[in-house]
Amino acid sequence: MLIGAVEAGGTKFVCGLGNEKGEVLDRVSFPTENPEKTLARVIEYYRDKQVEALGIGSFGPINIDRSSPQYGHVTTTPKPGWVNYPVLSELKKSFDIPIGWDTDVNAAALGEATWGAAKGLDSCLYYTIGTGVGVGVFAEGRMVHGLVHPEGGHVLTRRHPDDTYEGKCPYHGDCLEGMAAGPALEARWKVKGSELPADHPAWEMEAFYIGQALVSAILLLSPKKIILGGGVMHQLQLFPLIREQVRANLKGYVATPALEIGGIDEYIVPPTLGDNAGLCGSIALGLRAYEEARQS
Amino acid sequence: MLIGAVEAGGTKFVCGLGNEKGEVLDRVSFPTENPEKTLARVIEYYRDKQVEALGIGSFGPINIDRSSPQYGHVTTTPKPGWVNYPVLSELKKSFDIPIGWDTDVNAAALGEATWGAAKGLDSCLYYTIGTGVGVGVFAEGRMVHGLVHPEGGHVLTRRHPDDTYEGKCPYHGDCLEGMAAGPALEARWKVKGSELPADHPAWEMEAFYIGQALVSAILLLSPKKIILGGGVMHQLQLFPLIREQVRANLKGYVATPALEIGGIDEYIVPPTLGDNAGLCGSIALGLRAYEEARQS
Repeated sequence: MLIGAVEAGGTKFVCGLGNEKGEVLDRVSFPTENPEKTLARVIEYYRDKQVEALGIGSFGPINIDRSSPQYGHVTTTPKPGWVNYPVLSELKKSFDIPIGWDTDVNAAALGEATWGAAKGLDSCLYYTIGTGVGVGVFAEGRMVHGLVHPEGGHVLTRRHPDDTYEGKCPYHGDCLEGMAAGPALEARWKVKGSELPADHPAWEMEAFYIGQALVSAILLLSPKKIILGGGVMHQLQLFPLIREQVRANLKGYVATPALEIGGIDEYIVPPTLGDNAGLCGSIALGLRAYEEARQS
Repeated sequence: MLIGAVEAGGTKFVCGLGNEKGEVLDRVSFPTENPEKTLARVIEYYRDKQVEALGIGSFGPINIDRSSPQYGHVTTTPKPGWVNYPVLSELKKSFDIPIGWDTDVNAAALGEATWGAAKGLDSCLYYTIGTGVGVGVFAEGRMVHGLVHPEGGHVLTRRHPDDTYEGKCPYHGDCLEGMAAGPALEARWKVKGSELPADHPAWEMEAFYIGQALVSAILLLSPKKIILGGGVMHQLQLFPLIREQVRANLKGYVATPALEIGGIDEYIVPPTLGDNAGLCGSIALGLRAYEEARQS
């Protein structure tokens, strides 16, 4: 079975071809232009590919409320031409197949829960920490949508006592994204994060912010696994520092082996789907849409 | 159809009788003693009541992982005799009917989503703010369990700039419960919250803490309704103050009518089931267990 997988990013689109095992068989990518041009390339790519379903993990904010007339739209993005653009219905005009549609981070969470670091679990959180911070929420076997969709990158933070940086988020200043995304790292230390040595104090401060956000997420949602991806998390020295922060902040309140020394190394982890994480997530979305269509 | 509903509290147990409309037909309550004595009274109450299902909303922490051998146990409570006590299997010995089992706050969230303030919605958060702070999470039509269960009363806070109180939580000091539960109010102001006038600055500080916790919950989970119950929330002057804090902290980032002026009055609300909230939640748990048993 062939499934089409679209990683619809604000900077580039990746179109791929996968199967029900989560294997990526082909991929192309191109820059995101206006929606008409961009979707024309998507349609062109899949025209002769015989896919039985399509999954789209999209940049946002997007409308994922199936009962809404705006379901399938990109909504309030600053990206020219994309405001309120009906991505899903435009693709449906060309492909009469089940199409799964969700945020890129929800797709990544689903992909990791299907074939990756959270394989077989019915809940996980997927954080991407890069130029921004996004959070995908998978709970009780479903992607969480709710009123709009999770925007957990903007949760409030307690400031690190040694941190005088005001924060980069244009909305909130010192929210998680404002303090811990790549641009905040660079603005605070006057050098790109990727150029800071692994033992630089920047990483302990970074772990301070990420760790506290995870603590509140663990308390509120009790996920079975937390997966941290994105460019900043390529700094693998962050993982032990973040686990330490989480334990220091929880103070033993949640009694479970997963949060104890040893257990936590398997609880807060990198994605295992690597460069295919986005495409695998979109394949999983497509597969789920296909299965739902068969059951209904 | 008659459904038994148990509010299993750490201080008192309430046993009730309800129907599939969420109507409470009878109730008794008695103090929580050791588990053997207490469950004997529960069993005695339902022995001749002909209930077709039972729902139990319990004090915690409890095990609600159906795949665990400890499913149905109270786990690490300081309450004498209750540590690792198998509440559910003890009741199953007497009643061969479907029994729903969840945290008291998840039950309350389900009750409000079935018959109350979130009626018809597939997601809501239920906060009880009283001697402690508990949070029930209902998302995508299901109670969220995860690794253990939500413990959202203990999320971290940013301190109010005028607040010198160190916090009451024995684990975290100044977490939400440590700063905003009834005992924290009393310790900070040296008088019971119920005796403070409605225009006392205590309420603005209280709203500061509750509001910021709601902001992080809205960002992480995007619930369709937030219901605030418990003794502290009998101070209805808190509602407008909390809504103001939420809007001030979100800074317009999540664009949806529910969070705009006007909309937010219907978004952050008191429970509508009033004194029956706990029992209605347990009725809803029992009803759900009954329906699941029929489908399987």
